[in-house]
Amino acid sequence: MIVPARGREAILNAVVHLLATRGPDDLSVRNVAARADVSAGAVQHHFPTKSALLVAAMNAVTERFRARLELRLTGVSSAEERLRVFCSEIACIDGEGLTDAVVWTTFAARACTDPEIRQIHAKTWKNTEAVVAKLLDAAFPQRDVNEDDAASLLALVDGIAVARGSEQSSRMTAERAQRMIDRALALIGGARPVLNADR
Amino acid sequence: MIVPARGREAILNAVVHLLATRGPDDLSVRNVAARADVSAGAVQHHFPTKSALLVAAMNAVTERFRARLELRLTGVSSAEERLRVFCSEIACIDGEGLTDAVVWTTFAARACTDPEIRQIHAKTWKNTEAVVAKLLDAAFPQRDVNEDDAASLLALVDGIAVARGSEQSSRMTAERAQRMIDRALALIGGARPVLNADR
Repeated sequence: MIVPARGREAILNAVVHLLATRGPDDLSVRNVAARADVSAGAVQHHFPTKSALLVAAMNAVTERFRARLELRLTGVSSAEERLRVFCSEIACIDGEGLTDAVVWTTFAARACTDPEIRQIHAKTWKNTEAVVAKLLDAAFPQRDVNEDDAASLLALVDGIAVARGSEQSSRMTAERAQRMIDRALALIGGARPVLNADR
Repeated sequence: MIVPARGREAILNAVVHLLATRGPDDLSVRNVAARADVSAGAVQHHFPTKSALLVAAMNAVTERFRARLELRLTGVSSAEERLRVFCSEIACIDGEGLTDAVVWTTFAARACTDPEIRQIHAKTWKNTEAVVAKLLDAAFPQRDVNEDDAASLLALVDGIAVARGSEQSSRMTAERAQRMIDRALALIGGARPVLNADR
């Protein structure tokens, strides 16, 4: 069976849409096919298992994230601003990002119990921490380097993203999330070692 | 149909076990009944829908969390240490906590697309932020109070918990997670306002 590239893309868009609006329980071949306006056979041809569908959707969301980030970073030369933009994107602060927050939280949950998804998820986050570390070094060349700062910043923005996707409440508005990131960057950038004896 | 309280507890334990090891896809009445060693009818009597099962499991995990926390806080009088213990528990740093990390990540993912779960989830996290704010005030009475510090600390430990549950890798060991919390507490506790002009 030959399915045009458009079909594959339509299927992945349908998967992301279903995950973002109805959750993985409703991610059936039938629902994906209906949403993508293709046959069930076409879905199964491209993605024989639910895991295959999810892995492809993860990759599609990661690609979309990269493309949006590149666009947002175009013309931004300040290293501190580049770090800030990166954090805001991971924290899913803008409108489009809320879909990613939901889809990523879904992936994270599946990674907990599905070894194949977990492997990809763990690799992506390891790479992401390395990117954050580089951005931090560029933004704050004079800071006291701490090997856990990148992981902490990443955990913060991940926690914000999960809160935004899972609560969708006034507790974690886009404005507050951005303030929290700015505060974290100020603390990391301006941090001097604090010893108990100083208190 | 009369089911002893033991039955209800066995069902909830089975739900938590299934969520932690196999994920929500495998959370069927049949699987829960088999694991709890009760009839399918007993499961349906107590929990007529999958949402009802999940809500009850969320409450059970929250209760277990509270009980464990209370135990860990017994005899701890230092306000800073109490805050530290609370953060470590939310971050799912100890062994038993890893199950909670998985179950909570699952709940967070479902909250993204299930309004009933979301309402409970959002309320729990709002309350948790209030607890963190109180613990922060008690631990660092002299700090420059920032209304987002509690939310930031909570996002950090949530992000750590999700990383521990979903990656289960060397990136986020218990030791590293604890260091990150200690570093965050040092930064928040020792923070002075940092102005750009100071750099």
